[in-house]
Amino acid sequence: MKKVRIALLGLGNIGQGVWRILNTNRNEITMNCGYEIEVARVLVRDRNKIRGVQIPKEILTTDINDIFNDSGIKIVVELMGGTEPAREYMLGAMRRKKHVVTANKLVLATRGEELFKAADEEGVLFYYEASVGGGIPIIREINESLTANRIEKLVGIINGTTNYILTKMTHEGMDFNEALKEAQQKGYAEADPSSDVEGYDAVYKLAIMSSLSFGTKIDLSSIYREGIGNIKTVDIDYAKRFGYVIKLLAIGKETDNELELRVHPAMVPKTHPIANVNDSFNAIFVKGNAVGDLMLYGRGAGDLPTGSAVVGDIISILRNNVDLSNLSSQKNGTVTKKVRNASESSSEYYIRLDVKDRPGVLGEIAAVFGKHDVSIFSVSQDVKNKHNVSLVFITHEALEGNVAESIKEIGTLDRVNNLENIIRIENFN
Amino acid sequence: MKKVRIALLGLGNIGQGVWRILNTNRNEITMNCGYEIEVARVLVRDRNKIRGVQIPKEILTTDINDIFNDSGIKIVVELMGGTEPAREYMLGAMRRKKHVVTANKLVLATRGEELFKAADEEGVLFYYEASVGGGIPIIREINESLTANRIEKLVGIINGTTNYILTKMTHEGMDFNEALKEAQQKGYAEADPSSDVEGYDAVYKLAIMSSLSFGTKIDLSSIYREGIGNIKTVDIDYAKRFGYVIKLLAIGKETDNELELRVHPAMVPKTHPIANVNDSFNAIFVKGNAVGDLMLYGRGAGDLPTGSAVVGDIISILRNNVDLSNLSSQKNGTVTKKVRNASESSSEYYIRLDVKDRPGVLGEIAAVFGKHDVSIFSVSQDVKNKHNVSLVFITHEALEGNVAESIKEIGTLDRVNNLENIIRIENFN
Repeated sequence: MKKVRIALLGLGNIGQGVWRILNTNRNEITMNCGYEIEVARVLVRDRNKIRGVQIPKEILTTDINDIFNDSGIKIVVELMGGTEPAREYMLGAMRRKKHVVTANKLVLATRGEELFKAADEEGVLFYYEASVGGGIPIIREINESLTANRIEKLVGIINGTTNYILTKMTHEGMDFNEALKEAQQKGYAEADPSSDVEGYDAVYKLAIMSSLSFGTKIDLSSIYREGIGNIKTVDIDYAKRFGYVIKLLAIGKETDNELELRVHPAMVPKTHPIANVNDSFNAIFVKGNAVGDLMLYGRGAGDLPTGSAVVGDIISILRNNVDLSNLSSQKNGTVTKKVRNASESSSEYYIRLDVKDRPGVLGEIAAVFGKHDVSIFSVSQDVKNKHNVSLVFITHEALEGNVAESIKEIGTLDRVNNLENIIRIENFN
Repeated sequence: MKKVRIALLGLGNIGQGVWRILNTNRNEITMNCGYEIEVARVLVRDRNKIRGVQIPKEILTTDINDIFNDSGIKIVVELMGGTEPAREYMLGAMRRKKHVVTANKLVLATRGEELFKAADEEGVLFYYEASVGGGIPIIREINESLTANRIEKLVGIINGTTNYILTKMTHEGMDFNEALKEAQQKGYAEADPSSDVEGYDAVYKLAIMSSLSFGTKIDLSSIYREGIGNIKTVDIDYAKRFGYVIKLLAIGKETDNELELRVHPAMVPKTHPIANVNDSFNAIFVKGNAVGDLMLYGRGAGDLPTGSAVVGDIISILRNNVDLSNLSSQKNGTVTKKVRNASESSSEYYIRLDVKDRPGVLGEIAAVFGKHDVSIFSVSQDVKNKHNVSLVFITHEALEGNVAESIKEIGTLDRVNNLENIIRIENFN
């Protein structure tokens, strides 16, 4: 049996998962790629740290040059995270004609172009399945399975932390803070949860998927972003009443050669398969002009699921599957498409207001919506206390700019106390 | 731009879909594979038949030798269906060093080994993504994305006709015959629906997926098969009451190097994403020992979704993606694993009996289950009329053989009128 030597950069959660899979599934992997894979070197910060896997100390190194200068190492697997030195080390490996696999969403979303270009120039392969959706093979789907399609739309639940929180709020009636606390206790959320909760993590992943799907460079700042911190249990309850479930969605859409890119909470119909994507699971819905509706569901994080994608990439390189990275990077570089301003996007909306319980208030508000071309699908009125009522509007599809102007004007009405919340509705059309 | 000439065998529904996609998405396809694809020849039975697509008459031929003898044709795409002459034509194309793409589940399930072997011998590529799950990229997932995993379990809704019928029964309260009639009117079911309704179609597809997933030859006769003709609206209603939905499932499982392979209706928890797979949609759930739970959802049939998979395969060949067919055929050929007899499989069960309304009947039945080691999770008793009651048992996990013996003995009890139905419960463990 032929042998191949590889190096891992980083031995955290995912690195240990990769090590475990390479050992546990040794027979399957060897059969699937035709090579015995030997982890020859692992770059770590501290060789003496105690780790969850048994790994011979002599292969641990703190010096990247031990890997760069070992010409027998054919594949470098970057699992450090963060932008630097991950970017520098990957470029260094490519310049030394080593193939590169990474699970690093941040560096791909921010410096992907540079890495694709270097891989092209050096004629090496650069795979990154684990960077989006953990174990879900979304990158391969976009780059290889859907090549006969023009991709029209992506809708993803691509952040496990927020999905866990929203699931707890939906199924167990917790409020946001309780659910966040539990997520932190269970290790699903970090001590500083802002990257997940405010939608940044989803923004990076959406940028990677959109760049490949729509064949364009994506500027992160062009992605509209809204987190889940403002979702109240009362909104969850209203969603249920109307037949919806609230999820944090990442949406990419191309119409007339222009893109819409946004990350925000949205109501999805409870009869859609995405509505049953619960806990820390992820799912990505793709609409192609030939294939129609397609959805992938699975574990978006975790050592073994993410490791599964990483090892799958290593095997693909060993099978000499040369089509993926080169073509996608070409695709990546060629065009820059216009991204529409969020105000030009359109959606159905759920709008919850706190108003004074006086005759005529409903008519007054409805008139404002009408004036701005926002057509109402349904209204619910619930008494909150002696003086105040909760008014919930579901709109037909309306331009975001028009909704924003309506809301602004409604806010000036005497009998309106407060705009409590506004949440988009995604019907997968 | 480089050009490549291909031939289609068959110009039915899928053939026309492929033709449309090659035209509509010409730019995307050319960019994705680096070739302009020219359909040089199309094999048809009747050159003068009027068809739904505009196609130059001079490329239509009724003689396969026009394709065999044209050395400029590099890829042959078989879309005729059936075993012969599809098998013969594919072998003929391979012997002439042409790559082959097919959408033909029947020929793969029954004669796959021969085709894989011929492709290996001739050094040509043989792709078949469209043979299972229409536009859903399940073959690529098994063969390329999950290579780092030992696949432990497959659970699929892989027949659109039966899923359409069960959806109508569940959501609109139709009985089986009404729903079948509507499916026929809408073109989802054929005039003779037996291949779909009795589960044969799902058996072919399960054989293909299992062969690849578990690395073994599959004898079709080793797959347990049960259709949906026996599902009554009352069973659908009980399922709802207990939190389940009834689906026709194709299940493949490996434990201790032995397989379980079965196609039958089953109750699935309504909170699982597969429960929301409705109408003619398909979904395939895969459990890998690294990736965990994964599910793919999409259109399992139709000209464009299936055409999307076919054209995707053509593009993969043009990208010279040489890993897929060869390795999978090796995998296919090496081992033959034992398939367990259905009686050795275990599951939870829903068992509905019609019994006489007399004291002690419940105790008597429960005693029989106990004697055969079948433990009861819950019982529901509903009065049907003055004399009869409906008794529904949900069991804990039990061996099928033990359940069968219990049922046999229960059938001999005086106060038991009839075994109305028995349906397995699939909890995705």
